[in-house]
Amino acid sequence: MKFNIKKQSFYKSLSSVGRASSTHSPLPILSGIKFELRNNTLTLIASDSNISIREVIYANEENNLVIHEEGDVVLEARYVLEAVRKLDADIINMEIIDGALTRISGNQAEYNINGTKGDQYPIIDFTKPEKQFEISGSKLSEIISQTAFVCSTSEDRPIFTGVNFKANGTTLNSVATDSYRLAKKVVELPVEIDFNISVPASNLYEVQKTITGDEIITIAVSDKLVQFYIGETLIQSRLIDGLFPDVNRLIPNEYGFELVVKKIDLINAVDRSSFLKSEGYWTVKLEATPDEIIISSKSQEIGSSEEILHPINYVGGNLKISFSGKYLIEALKSFKSETVKIMFVGEMQAFVIRHPEDDSIVQLILPLRTFD
Amino acid sequence: MKFNIKKQSFYKSLSSVGRASSTHSPLPILSGIKFELRNNTLTLIASDSNISIREVIYANEENNLVIHEEGDVVLEARYVLEAVRKLDADIINMEIIDGALTRISGNQAEYNINGTKGDQYPIIDFTKPEKQFEISGSKLSEIISQTAFVCSTSEDRPIFTGVNFKANGTTLNSVATDSYRLAKKVVELPVEIDFNISVPASNLYEVQKTITGDEIITIAVSDKLVQFYIGETLIQSRLIDGLFPDVNRLIPNEYGFELVVKKIDLINAVDRSSFLKSEGYWTVKLEATPDEIIISSKSQEIGSSEEILHPINYVGGNLKISFSGKYLIEALKSFKSETVKIMFVGEMQAFVIRHPEDDSIVQLILPLRTFD
Repeated sequence: MKFNIKKQSFYKSLSSVGRASSTHSPLPILSGIKFELRNNTLTLIASDSNISIREVIYANEENNLVIHEEGDVVLEARYVLEAVRKLDADIINMEIIDGALTRISGNQAEYNINGTKGDQYPIIDFTKPEKQFEISGSKLSEIISQTAFVCSTSEDRPIFTGVNFKANGTTLNSVATDSYRLAKKVVELPVEIDFNISVPASNLYEVQKTITGDEIITIAVSDKLVQFYIGETLIQSRLIDGLFPDVNRLIPNEYGFELVVKKIDLINAVDRSSFLKSEGYWTVKLEATPDEIIISSKSQEIGSSEEILHPINYVGGNLKISFSGKYLIEALKSFKSETVKIMFVGEMQAFVIRHPEDDSIVQLILPLRTFD
Repeated sequence: MKFNIKKQSFYKSLSSVGRASSTHSPLPILSGIKFELRNNTLTLIASDSNISIREVIYANEENNLVIHEEGDVVLEARYVLEAVRKLDADIINMEIIDGALTRISGNQAEYNINGTKGDQYPIIDFTKPEKQFEISGSKLSEIISQTAFVCSTSEDRPIFTGVNFKANGTTLNSVATDSYRLAKKVVELPVEIDFNISVPASNLYEVQKTITGDEIITIAVSDKLVQFYIGETLIQSRLIDGLFPDVNRLIPNEYGFELVVKKIDLINAVDRSSFLKSEGYWTVKLEATPDEIIISSKSQEIGSSEEILHPINYVGGNLKISFSGKYLIEALKSFKSETVKIMFVGEMQAFVIRHPEDDSIVQLILPLRTFD
């Protein structure tokens, strides 16, 4: 194996693929990146049991890839990344000098890195499932931003650590919940398709990082995995086993109170009460009357905060409701609009946050019981 | 106690004083800032057993301080800082509303913070010792930058966790060592004075953070403490007990090899070998001949690196020496010059780094023994 390539584009590809390598895997070789040099292309592969990334680099003017000798090798991701990053050269040379010992050089500096032979790397099946559809990068990124943050980080109920994507005809429902809050986004697809899968939130964030703009992304789905084709990069994620609960019945249809407010005003007011938090959580109380809306919080030990909120509009009578300040801020931040509409059923009922002109997204939060 | 003050300058003073408060102190009240409102001034005090900071705020046009009622209170530093930072107001109002419960408000928002009565706070003796001298902020900052980084962070030998300042006549010697390396800076003082004190490096960094420019700083010294008067801020540090060893005899007088090199070239070359590090340390080998200078490093497990260094000048024969890459980079970075002069005695002897035109600063590093 021997090739040279422009540092900048090589480093970009290595960082993108390297994110799938894992230093925690029971299989030590999975902390590496596999380099495959064949038929005038350089293919980079990294994988743990959870996510696999493959990038195919074709020689072009931008990357200046020149292949002198085919072959393959596996190099520890963090060392090869560090070596390429630190070399002060426009063109990087890489070659196997002895067995799997690989030289990476540029200018007057060189690294010799102990690698592993390519045939030691497990074979990753990247076969493309037949069920597939296209979506724009910006739309996919928006779906991820508006749902994945809600997912649970605890493995107690694995199904809640991912976003559920359910396609039925041309409608795609994306839903996430951690059982205390819920996000639901509905988009139309260009083809009729039918699937019901749950994808780990952490893998969706990797997909989101790889999206550069408004490129068309192909998503291919089987009952075992999902693939995201983004430019020359293929990200393949496992699915989460288990049935995602039907959450549609949790979203109320009728409301007794409606608050329209500038998003940034509410974020700032709730954030001001956040110094009373412990372990990242704090409870905020909203007290509304037709005349005045007050946001307050309280901690026996530290003290209290209180302020008057100036809404754009409030319809309804007296309402007193407590909720997690962190959850409300995160839900508000998922909206791109300047104003939001918050709809309450009653004091101990779930409330929803909506975009005033866009019905495709709904955020739901369960209230907290307080003792004062 | 009741006053109002401009948010911006108040927050600045609070952060500066708050750095001396400690959440780890066995005395819980020391996690607070003491507010003293007397005679048209607001005095802020914070202290742990190690460092004390006092700032006196006189009403002026910049801070808009208006005192309505004298008094004092102690408030938890992190809560009062967070409250003032989060309030979206130009002017902050602060008043005791009940016992030690203190209201901090601005605009339509307010915080009520549980405080402690002022007389519960220990009395800190800020009496100014008679032995004192003046120094410019930039000069003091330079002394700290060029010595304190060398100090040990381990409490095994407490005397090595501080910088030793020894004044004799008008000469001030500032020396730091962790027993593997040494920094020595010599400056002239405007007065004849005599002392020998060791000041914790961490406290010197607090002093450095408070220096804003080229203000004149008064340093007052007793055999128990040292005080730094920086504008309206007084920083008082304990001294480290014990005799600082005489290290002058460790600095060689005669050298067999002299390397002059562009500082940035050597930093980059040594940094390129740093991906072989474990726990922040890595060993670098320098091999010099009259024709070529090679920087290399090696790790049994990971691999090796090697590169050719282009010096400005090298005088001496064949030399092979190994040292800590981290120590060399830190020593090099303490110089402001573009080039540095490295002088070697021999293979297993300490070597020194000097500024080509400024003899006031010397950095010394002990070599490492390697087995190859």
